[in-house]
Amino acid sequence: MIQPQMTPHATMLGFITTDARISSPVLRECLANAVEQSFNRITVDGDMSTNDTVLVLANGLASSPKTKIRSPNSRGFTIFQAALSQVCLTLARMIVRDGEGVDRCVTVRVAGARTAREADAAARAVANSALVKTSWHGGDPNWGRIIDALGYSPARVMEEKVDIGYRAPGSSSILWSLKRGQPTRAGFRELCAAVAPKEFELHIRLNLGRAGAVIYAGDLTEEYVEFNKGDVTDPASLGG
Amino acid sequence: MIQPQMTPHATMLGFITTDARISSPVLRECLANAVEQSFNRITVDGDMSTNDTVLVLANGLASSPKTKIRSPNSRGFTIFQAALSQVCLTLARMIVRDGEGVDRCVTVRVAGARTAREADAAARAVANSALVKTSWHGGDPNWGRIIDALGYSPARVMEEKVDIGYRAPGSSSILWSLKRGQPTRAGFRELCAAVAPKEFELHIRLNLGRAGAVIYAGDLTEEYVEFNKGDVTDPASLGG
Repeated sequence: MIQPQMTPHATMLGFITTDARISSPVLRECLANAVEQSFNRITVDGDMSTNDTVLVLANGLASSPKTKIRSPNSRGFTIFQAALSQVCLTLARMIVRDGEGVDRCVTVRVAGARTAREADAAARAVANSALVKTSWHGGDPNWGRIIDALGYSPARVMEEKVDIGYRAPGSSSILWSLKRGQPTRAGFRELCAAVAPKEFELHIRLNLGRAGAVIYAGDLTEEYVEFNKGDVTDPASLGG
Repeated sequence: MIQPQMTPHATMLGFITTDARISSPVLRECLANAVEQSFNRITVDGDMSTNDTVLVLANGLASSPKTKIRSPNSRGFTIFQAALSQVCLTLARMIVRDGEGVDRCVTVRVAGARTAREADAAARAVANSALVKTSWHGGDPNWGRIIDALGYSPARVMEEKVDIGYRAPGSSSILWSLKRGQPTRAGFRELCAAVAPKEFELHIRLNLGRAGAVIYAGDLTEEYVEFNKGDVTDPASLGG
Protein backbone atom coordinates (compact mmCIF):
# COMPACT_ATOMS: atom_id res chain seq x y z
CA MET A 1 0.00 0.00 0.00
CA ILE A 2 2.37 2.69 -1.23
CA GLN A 3 -0.08 5.55 -1.13
CA PRO A 4 1.42 8.03 1.29
CA GLN A 5 -1.58 10.33 1.17
CA MET A 6 -3.59 7.58 2.79
CA THR A 7 -1.42 7.26 5.83
CA PRO A 8 -0.31 10.59 7.19
CA HIS A 9 -1.59 9.75 10.66
CA ALA A 10 -2.99 6.22 10.79
CA THR A 11 0.37 4.55 10.50
CA MET A 12 3.13 4.52 13.05
CA LEU A 13 6.72 4.08 11.90
CA GLY A 14 9.30 3.77 14.69
CA PHE A 15 13.06 3.73 14.19
CA ILE A 16 15.46 3.10 17.04
CA THR A 17 19.24 2.97 16.76
CA THR A 18 21.81 1.69 19.21
CA ASP A 19 25.55 1.02 19.26
CA ALA A 20 25.05 -2.07 21.40
CA ARG A 21 26.98 -5.20 20.40
CA ILE A 22 24.05 -7.59 20.27
CA SER A 23 23.22 -10.51 18.02
CA SER A 24 20.27 -10.25 15.70
CA PRO A 25 18.10 -12.95 17.36
CA VAL A 26 18.71 -11.52 20.83
CA LEU A 27 17.96 -8.00 19.60
CA ARG A 28 14.76 -9.29 18.01
CA GLU A 29 13.72 -10.84 21.30
CA CYS A 30 14.46 -7.60 23.17
CA LEU A 31 12.39 -5.61 20.67
CA ALA A 32 9.45 -8.01 20.84
CA ASN A 33 9.43 -7.73 24.64
CA ALA A 34 9.66 -3.95 24.53
CA VAL A 35 6.99 -3.49 21.86
CA GLU A 36 4.55 -5.77 23.67
CA GLN A 37 4.64 -3.48 26.71
CA SER A 38 4.67 -0.16 24.85
CA PHE A 39 3.50 0.32 21.24
CA ASN A 40 1.09 -2.62 21.50
CA ARG A 41 -0.47 -1.08 24.59
CA ILE A 42 -1.52 2.31 23.28
CA THR A 43 -4.83 3.29 21.73
CA VAL A 44 -6.08 6.56 20.41
CA ASP A 45 -9.22 5.41 18.64
CA GLY A 46 -8.99 1.62 18.53
CA ASP A 47 -8.15 1.67 14.83
CA MET A 48 -5.06 -0.24 13.89
CA SER A 49 -2.99 0.30 10.76
CA THR A 50 -1.71 -2.59 8.73
CA ASN A 51 1.55 -0.73 8.26
CA ASP A 52 2.56 -0.09 11.86
CA THR A 53 6.26 -0.83 12.08
CA VAL A 54 9.07 -0.54 14.62
CA LEU A 55 12.66 -1.15 13.55
CA VAL A 56 15.73 -1.28 15.74
CA LEU A 57 19.19 -1.07 14.21
CA ALA A 58 22.34 -1.97 16.13
CA ASN A 59 25.71 -1.12 14.59
CA GLY A 60 27.78 -2.93 17.22
CA LEU A 61 30.19 -0.02 17.68
CA ALA A 62 30.12 -0.15 21.48
CA SER A 63 33.81 -0.79 22.09
CA SER A 64 34.28 -2.89 25.19
CA PRO A 65 34.26 -6.63 24.41
CA LYS A 66 32.43 -7.35 27.63
CA THR A 67 29.46 -5.35 26.38
CA LYS A 68 28.70 -8.04 23.82
CA ILE A 69 25.18 -9.31 24.51
CA ARG A 70 25.02 -12.95 23.59
CA SER A 71 22.04 -14.43 25.38
CA PRO A 72 18.86 -13.49 27.23
CA ASN A 73 20.40 -14.80 30.43
CA SER A 74 23.24 -12.28 30.53
CA ARG A 75 23.39 -9.18 32.69
CA GLY A 76 23.93 -7.10 29.56
CA PHE A 77 20.61 -8.35 28.20
CA THR A 78 18.75 -7.24 31.30
CA ILE A 79 20.27 -3.76 31.16
CA PHE A 80 19.76 -3.39 27.41
CA GLN A 81 16.18 -4.68 27.65
CA ALA A 82 15.37 -2.15 30.36
CA ALA A 83 16.80 0.68 28.25
CA LEU A 84 15.05 -0.39 25.05
CA SER A 85 11.75 -0.87 26.90
CA GLN A 86 12.06 2.60 28.38
CA VAL A 87 12.73 4.16 24.97
CA CYS A 88 9.79 2.33 23.40
CA LEU A 89 7.41 3.25 26.20
CA THR A 90 8.44 6.90 26.05
CA LEU A 91 7.91 6.99 22.27
CA ALA A 92 4.61 5.12 22.53
CA ARG A 93 3.20 7.50 25.10
CA MET A 94 4.29 10.44 22.96
CA ILE A 95 2.12 9.00 20.18
CA VAL A 96 -0.94 9.09 22.45
CA ARG A 97 -0.21 12.65 23.59
CA ASP A 98 0.14 13.61 19.94
CA GLY A 99 -3.02 11.71 18.89
CA GLU A 100 -5.61 13.43 16.71
CA GLY A 101 -7.50 15.86 18.92
CA VAL A 102 -6.33 14.13 22.09
CA ASP A 103 -6.78 16.37 25.10
CA ARG A 104 -6.33 13.95 28.01
CA CYS A 105 -4.08 10.87 28.29
CA VAL A 106 -5.23 8.15 30.62
CA THR A 107 -3.26 5.13 31.79
CA VAL A 108 -5.77 2.34 32.34
CA ARG A 109 -4.43 -0.16 34.86
CA VAL A 110 -6.42 -3.34 35.37
CA ALA A 111 -5.46 -5.69 38.20
CA GLY A 112 -7.04 -8.75 39.77
CA ALA A 113 -8.20 -10.38 36.54
CA ARG A 114 -8.33 -14.15 36.25
CA THR A 115 -5.91 -14.28 33.30
CA ALA A 116 -3.59 -11.92 31.43
CA ARG A 117 -5.85 -12.20 28.40
CA GLU A 118 -8.89 -11.15 30.42
CA ALA A 119 -6.98 -8.27 32.02
CA ASP A 120 -5.98 -7.07 28.58
CA ALA A 121 -9.54 -7.41 27.21
CA ALA A 122 -10.97 -5.50 30.17
CA ALA A 123 -8.44 -2.67 29.85
CA ARG A 124 -9.00 -2.40 26.09
CA ALA A 125 -12.80 -2.39 26.44
CA VAL A 126 -12.58 0.57 28.82
CA ALA A 127 -9.86 2.35 26.83
CA ASN A 128 -11.78 2.04 23.55
CA SER A 129 -15.28 2.83 24.83
CA ALA A 130 -16.59 5.94 23.10
CA LEU A 131 -18.64 6.78 26.18
CA VAL A 132 -15.70 6.39 28.58
CA LYS A 133 -13.46 8.42 26.27
CA THR A 134 -15.97 11.27 25.96
CA SER A 135 -16.37 11.32 29.76
CA TRP A 136 -12.58 11.73 30.07
CA HIS A 137 -12.79 14.61 27.64
CA GLY A 138 -15.54 16.17 29.73
CA GLY A 139 -13.62 15.72 32.99
CA ASP A 140 -16.47 13.55 34.25
CA PRO A 141 -15.47 10.87 36.81
CA ASN A 142 -18.18 8.57 35.47
CA TRP A 143 -17.79 5.08 36.90
CA GLY A 144 -21.05 3.86 35.36
CA ARG A 145 -19.57 3.89 31.88
CA ILE A 146 -16.39 2.17 33.09
CA ILE A 147 -18.21 -0.68 34.78
CA ASP A 148 -20.48 -0.93 31.74
CA ALA A 149 -17.48 -1.40 29.44
CA LEU A 150 -16.03 -3.96 31.84
CA GLY A 151 -19.37 -5.73 31.78
CA TYR A 152 -19.45 -6.17 28.00
CA SER A 153 -15.75 -7.03 27.73
CA PRO A 154 -14.94 -10.72 27.34
CA ALA A 155 -13.36 -10.65 30.82
CA ARG A 156 -15.03 -12.26 33.79
CA VAL A 157 -16.31 -9.40 35.98
CA MET A 158 -18.34 -9.52 39.18
CA GLU A 159 -19.88 -6.11 39.68
CA GLU A 160 -19.89 -6.49 43.45
CA LYS A 161 -16.12 -6.98 43.53
CA VAL A 162 -14.95 -4.14 41.29
CA ASP A 163 -12.85 -1.23 42.60
CA ILE A 164 -12.39 1.89 40.45
CA GLY A 165 -10.08 4.76 41.37
CA TYR A 166 -7.82 7.52 40.09
CA ARG A 167 -4.25 8.51 40.70
CA ALA A 168 -2.81 11.87 39.76
CA PRO A 169 0.69 12.02 38.24
CA GLY A 170 3.24 12.09 41.05
CA SER A 171 0.74 11.09 43.70
CA SER A 172 1.30 7.93 45.69
CA SER A 173 -2.31 7.36 46.66
CA ILE A 174 -5.35 6.29 44.69
CA LEU A 175 -8.65 8.10 45.16
CA TRP A 176 -11.22 5.33 45.03
CA SER A 177 -14.55 6.14 43.44
CA LEU A 178 -15.98 2.63 43.73
CA LYS A 179 -15.07 -0.12 46.18
CA ARG A 180 -16.52 -3.59 45.85
CA GLY A 181 -19.10 -2.24 43.45
CA GLN A 182 -20.29 0.49 45.81
CA PRO A 183 -19.63 4.24 45.56
CA THR A 184 -17.16 5.41 48.18
CA ARG A 185 -17.46 8.54 50.29
CA ALA A 186 -15.25 10.44 47.85
CA GLY A 187 -17.06 13.65 46.91
CA PHE A 188 -18.00 14.57 43.36
CA ARG A 189 -15.75 17.66 43.36
CA GLU A 190 -12.84 15.62 44.67
CA LEU A 191 -13.35 13.01 41.92
CA CYS A 192 -13.67 15.75 39.28
CA ALA A 193 -10.32 17.14 40.47
CA ALA A 194 -8.79 13.66 40.09
CA VAL A 195 -9.76 13.45 36.39
CA ALA A 196 -9.02 17.11 35.62
CA PRO A 197 -5.25 16.76 34.88
CA LYS A 198 -4.15 16.25 31.30
CA GLU A 199 -2.68 12.91 32.40
CA PHE A 200 -3.92 10.59 35.12
CA GLU A 201 -4.16 6.89 35.94
CA LEU A 202 -7.40 4.95 36.07
CA HIS A 203 -7.11 1.96 38.40
CA ILE A 204 -9.50 -0.95 38.06
CA ARG A 205 -9.32 -3.95 40.35
CA LEU A 206 -11.50 -6.87 39.39
CA ASN A 207 -10.52 -8.79 42.55
CA LEU A 208 -10.95 -12.18 40.90
CA GLY A 209 -7.34 -13.22 40.30
CA ARG A 210 -3.77 -12.05 39.97
CA ALA A 211 -3.43 -10.95 36.34
CA GLY A 212 -3.02 -7.35 35.24
CA ALA A 213 -2.69 -5.20 32.12
CA VAL A 214 -1.97 -1.60 31.22
CA ILE A 215 -3.30 0.41 28.28
CA TYR A 216 -2.29 3.98 27.46
CA ALA A 217 -5.28 5.76 25.95
CA GLY A 218 -6.42 9.11 24.67
CA ASP A 219 -9.83 10.71 25.13
CA LEU A 220 -12.38 11.34 22.36
CA THR A 221 -12.93 14.96 21.45
CA GLU A 222 -14.83 17.08 18.96
CA GLU A 223 -11.41 17.84 17.43
CA TYR A 224 -10.89 14.13 16.73
CA VAL A 225 -14.13 14.02 14.73
CA GLU A 226 -13.43 17.33 13.02
CA PHE A 227 -9.92 16.16 12.04
CA ASN A 228 -10.98 12.76 10.74
CA LYS A 229 -14.19 13.55 8.94
CA GLY A 230 -12.13 15.25 6.25
CA ASP A 231 -13.32 17.67 3.64
CA VAL A 232 -14.66 16.03 0.51
CA THR A 233 -14.55 19.32 -1.37
CA ASP A 234 -10.77 18.99 -1.03
CA PRO A 235 -9.90 15.34 -1.78
CA ALA A 236 -6.23 15.98 -1.03
CA SER A 237 -7.21 16.65 2.59
CA LEU A 238 -8.76 13.24 3.07
CA GLY A 239 -6.82 11.07 5.48
CA GLY A 240 -6.15 7.39 5.86
CA MET B 1 -29.03 -0.58 39.07
CA ILE B 2 -32.06 1.52 39.91
CA GLN B 3 -30.43 4.87 39.28
CA PRO B 4 -32.49 6.41 36.53
CA GLN B 5 -30.20 9.44 36.18
CA MET B 6 -27.51 7.07 34.92
CA THR B 7 -29.48 5.70 32.05
CA PRO B 8 -31.40 8.35 30.17
CA HIS B 9 -29.92 7.27 26.84
CA ALA B 10 -27.59 4.32 27.23
CA THR B 11 -30.39 1.89 27.91
CA MET B 12 -32.97 0.64 25.47
CA LEU B 13 -36.34 -0.54 26.76
CA GLY B 14 -38.67 -2.02 24.14
CA PHE B 15 -42.29 -2.98 24.75
CA ILE B 16 -44.36 -4.75 22.12
CA THR B 17 -47.96 -5.84 22.52
CA THR B 18 -50.05 -8.20 20.40
CA ASP B 19 -53.46 -9.83 20.59
CA ALA B 20 -52.11 -13.03 19.00
CA ARG B 21 -53.13 -16.31 20.59
CA ILE B 22 -49.69 -17.77 21.08
CA SER B 23 -48.14 -19.89 23.80
CA SER B 24 -45.42 -18.42 25.96
CA PRO B 25 -42.57 -20.69 24.75
CA VAL B 26 -43.46 -20.12 21.10
CA LEU B 27 -43.72 -16.38 21.66
CA ARG B 28 -40.33 -16.43 23.37
CA GLU B 29 -38.82 -18.21 20.38
CA CYS B 30 -40.37 -15.69 17.98
CA LEU B 31 -38.99 -12.81 20.02
CA ALA B 32 -35.50 -14.31 20.21
CA ASN B 33 -35.46 -14.73 16.43
CA ALA B 34 -36.70 -11.18 15.87
CA VAL B 35 -34.31 -9.55 18.35
CA GLU B 36 -31.31 -11.37 16.91
CA GLN B 37 -31.95 -9.77 13.52
CA SER B 38 -32.92 -6.31 14.75
CA PHE B 39 -32.02 -4.90 18.18
CA ASN B 40 -28.89 -7.05 18.39
CA ARG B 41 -27.72 -5.73 15.05
CA ILE B 42 -27.67 -2.01 15.70
CA THR B 43 -24.78 0.07 16.96
CA VAL B 44 -24.50 3.75 17.65
CA ASP B 45 -21.19 3.83 19.52
CA GLY B 46 -20.40 0.19 20.31
CA ASP B 47 -21.34 0.69 23.96
CA MET B 48 -23.81 -1.80 25.29
CA SER B 49 -26.01 -1.27 28.32
CA THR B 50 -26.49 -3.99 30.88
CA ASN B 51 -30.14 -3.02 31.07
CA ASP B 52 -31.21 -3.34 27.45
CA THR B 53 -34.57 -5.08 27.44
CA VAL B 54 -37.29 -6.02 24.97
CA LEU B 55 -40.61 -7.37 26.22
CA VAL B 56 -43.47 -8.74 24.18
CA LEU B 57 -46.90 -9.19 25.74
CA ALA B 58 -49.64 -11.26 24.09
CA ASN B 59 -53.14 -11.07 25.55
CA GLY B 60 -54.60 -13.84 23.35
CA LEU B 61 -57.70 -11.80 22.43
CA ALA B 62 -57.51 -12.59 18.69
CA SER B 63 -60.87 -14.28 18.28
CA SER B 64 -60.67 -16.98 15.64
CA PRO B 65 -59.69 -20.39 17.09
CA LYS B 66 -57.63 -21.15 14.01
CA THR B 67 -55.34 -18.22 14.81
CA LYS B 68 -53.93 -20.08 17.79
CA ILE B 69 -50.19 -20.45 17.25
CA ARG B 70 -49.08 -23.69 18.80
CA SER B 71 -45.76 -24.61 17.24
CA PRO B 72 -42.89 -23.20 15.17
CA ASN B 73 -43.97 -25.44 12.29
CA SER B 74 -47.37 -23.84 11.82
CA ARG B 75 -48.31 -21.33 9.14
CA GLY B 76 -49.46 -18.93 11.87
CA PHE B 77 -45.97 -18.98 13.33
CA THR B 78 -44.40 -17.97 10.03
CA ILE B 79 -46.80 -15.07 9.59
CA PHE B 80 -46.51 -13.91 13.19
CA GLN B 81 -42.71 -14.21 13.08
CA ALA B 82 -42.54 -12.07 9.95
CA ALA B 83 -44.75 -9.40 11.56
CA LEU B 84 -42.84 -9.37 14.85
CA SER B 85 -39.49 -9.26 13.03
CA GLN B 86 -40.70 -6.33 10.97
CA VAL B 87 -41.84 -4.42 14.07
CA CYS B 88 -38.55 -5.09 15.86
CA LEU B 89 -36.44 -4.06 12.88
CA THR B 90 -38.43 -0.87 12.41
CA LEU B 91 -38.04 0.04 16.09
CA ALA B 92 -34.34 -0.89 16.10
CA ARG B 93 -33.57 1.29 13.09
CA MET B 94 -35.47 4.16 14.71
CA ILE B 95 -33.04 3.88 17.64
CA VAL B 96 -30.07 4.39 15.32
CA ARG B 97 -31.72 7.35 13.58
CA ASP B 98 -32.40 8.82 16.99
CA GLY B 99 -28.87 8.08 18.30
CA GLU B 100 -26.89 10.77 20.07
CA GLY B 101 -25.67 13.20 17.43
CA VAL B 102 -26.26 10.68 14.63
CA ASP B 103 -26.37 12.38 11.26
CA ARG B 104 -26.09 9.45 8.84
CA CYS B 105 -27.40 5.89 9.17
CA VAL B 106 -25.50 3.20 7.34
CA THR B 107 -26.55 -0.39 6.78
CA VAL B 108 -23.37 -2.46 6.68
CA ARG B 109 -23.92 -5.64 4.67
CA VAL B 110 -21.13 -8.20 4.69
CA ALA B 111 -21.35 -11.20 2.35
CA GLY B 112 -18.98 -13.95 1.33
CA ALA B 113 -17.48 -14.59 4.77
CA ARG B 114 -16.36 -18.08 5.72
CA THR B 115 -18.72 -18.31 8.71
CA ALA B 116 -21.63 -16.37 10.18
CA ARG B 117 -19.46 -15.48 13.16
CA GLU B 118 -16.77 -14.03 10.89
CA ALA B 119 -19.34 -12.12 8.86
CA ASP B 120 -20.71 -10.62 12.07
CA ALA B 121 -17.23 -9.74 13.36
CA ALA B 122 -16.29 -8.08 10.08
CA ALA B 123 -19.49 -6.04 9.95
CA ARG B 124 -19.11 -4.93 13.58
CA ALA B 125 -15.46 -3.97 13.14
CA VAL B 126 -16.42 -1.66 10.27
CA ALA B 127 -19.56 -0.35 11.99
CA ASN B 128 -17.71 0.46 15.22
CA SER B 129 -14.52 1.91 13.74
CA ALA B 130 -14.14 5.52 14.85
CA LEU B 131 -12.32 6.31 11.60
CA VAL B 132 -14.99 4.73 9.39
CA LYS B 133 -17.75 6.46 11.37
CA THR B 134 -16.12 9.88 11.10
CA SER B 135 -15.66 9.36 7.34
CA TRP B 136 -19.41 8.67 7.05
CA HIS B 137 -20.03 11.88 8.92
CA GLY B 138 -17.77 13.74 6.52
CA GLY B 139 -19.40 12.22 3.45
CA ASP B 140 -16.05 10.69 2.52
CA PRO B 141 -16.23 7.42 0.50
CA ASN B 142 -13.03 6.23 2.17
CA TRP B 143 -12.43 2.57 1.39
CA GLY B 144 -8.99 2.57 3.04
CA ARG B 145 -10.52 2.82 6.51
CA ILE B 146 -13.07 0.12 5.70
CA ILE B 147 -10.51 -2.38 4.50
CA ASP B 148 -8.33 -1.45 7.47
CA ALA B 149 -11.15 -2.30 9.90
CA LEU B 150 -11.81 -5.55 8.03
CA GLY B 151 -8.11 -6.32 8.34
CA TYR B 152 -8.00 -6.03 12.12
CA SER B 153 -11.34 -7.78 12.63
CA PRO B 154 -11.15 -11.43 13.69
CA ALA B 155 -12.60 -12.42 10.30
CA ARG B 156 -10.50 -14.02 7.62
CA VAL B 157 -9.97 -11.37 4.92
CA MET B 158 -7.91 -11.50 1.76
CA GLU B 159 -7.33 -7.96 0.61
CA GLU B 160 -7.13 -8.98 -3.04
CA LYS B 161 -10.62 -10.50 -2.91
CA VAL B 162 -12.56 -7.71 -1.21
CA ASP B 163 -15.33 -5.76 -2.96
CA ILE B 164 -16.68 -2.55 -1.39
CA GLY B 165 -19.66 -0.63 -2.75
CA TYR B 166 -22.61 1.60 -1.93
CA ARG B 167 -26.31 1.47 -2.63
CA ALA B 168 -28.62 4.43 -2.26
CA PRO B 169 -32.08 3.90 -0.71
CA GLY B 170 -34.46 2.78 -3.40
CA SER B 171 -31.73 2.04 -5.88
CA SER B 172 -31.38 -1.44 -7.27
CA SER B 173 -27.72 -1.19 -8.22
CA ILE B 174 -24.55 -1.04 -6.16
CA LEU B 175 -21.85 1.48 -7.05
CA TRP B 176 -18.62 -0.42 -6.49
CA SER B 177 -15.69 1.52 -5.15
CA LEU B 178 -13.35 -1.46 -4.84
CA LYS B 179 -13.42 -4.75 -6.73
CA ARG B 180 -11.09 -7.59 -5.81
CA GLY B 181 -9.04 -5.16 -3.76
CA GLN B 182 -8.57 -2.68 -6.61
CA PRO B 183 -10.23 0.73 -7.01
CA THR B 184 -12.85 0.70 -9.74
CA ARG B 185 -13.36 3.34 -12.40
CA ALA B 186 -16.07 5.01 -10.28
CA GLY B 187 -15.20 8.66 -9.96
CA PHE B 188 -14.66 10.45 -6.65
CA ARG B 189 -17.65 12.75 -7.15
CA GLU B 190 -19.87 9.80 -7.99
CA LEU B 191 -18.73 7.98 -4.86
CA CYS B 192 -19.23 11.11 -2.76
CA ALA B 193 -22.80 11.32 -4.08
CA ALA B 194 -23.33 7.67 -3.06
CA VAL B 195 -22.44 8.40 0.59
CA ALA B 196 -24.15 11.79 0.72
CA PRO B 197 -27.70 10.60 1.59
CA LYS B 198 -28.72 10.44 5.24
CA GLU B 199 -29.21 6.70 4.79
CA PHE B 200 -27.32 4.35 2.51
CA GLU B 201 -26.07 0.77 2.37
CA LEU B 202 -22.41 -0.21 2.50
CA HIS B 203 -21.84 -3.53 0.73
CA ILE B 204 -18.76 -5.58 1.55
CA ARG B 205 -18.05 -8.88 -0.19
CA LEU B 206 -15.20 -10.89 1.25
CA ASN B 207 -15.54 -13.54 -1.50
CA LEU B 208 -14.26 -16.32 0.72
CA GLY B 209 -17.47 -18.17 1.58
CA ARG B 210 -21.24 -17.98 1.81
CA ALA B 211 -21.94 -16.39 5.17
CA GLY B 212 -23.32 -12.90 5.62
CA ALA B 213 -24.30 -10.39 8.31
CA VAL B 214 -25.99 -7.00 8.58
CA ILE B 215 -25.31 -4.23 11.08
CA TYR B 216 -27.28 -0.97 11.26
CA ALA B 217 -24.92 1.79 12.36
CA GLY B 218 -24.76 5.50 12.99
CA ASP B 219 -21.89 7.85 12.16
CA LEU B 220 -19.67 9.62 14.70
CA THR B 221 -20.14 13.36 14.94
CA GLU B 222 -18.94 16.32 16.97
CA GLU B 223 -22.47 16.39 18.42
CA TYR B 224 -22.00 12.86 19.78
CA VAL B 225 -18.90 13.99 21.67
CA GLU B 226 -20.52 17.23 22.80
CA PHE B 227 -23.60 15.36 24.05
CA ASN B 228 -21.69 12.68 25.91
CA LYS B 229 -18.85 14.61 27.47
CA GLY B 230 -21.38 16.16 29.83
CA ASP B 231 -20.93 19.23 31.95
CA VAL B 232 -19.28 18.58 35.30
CA THR B 233 -20.32 21.99 36.56
CA ASP B 234 -23.86 20.63 36.36
CA PRO B 235 -23.74 17.07 37.76
CA ALA B 236 -27.44 16.57 37.00
CA SER B 237 -26.57 16.80 33.29
CA LEU B 238 -24.17 13.87 33.42
CA GLY B 239 -25.40 10.87 31.50
CA GLY B 240 -25.03 7.13 31.85
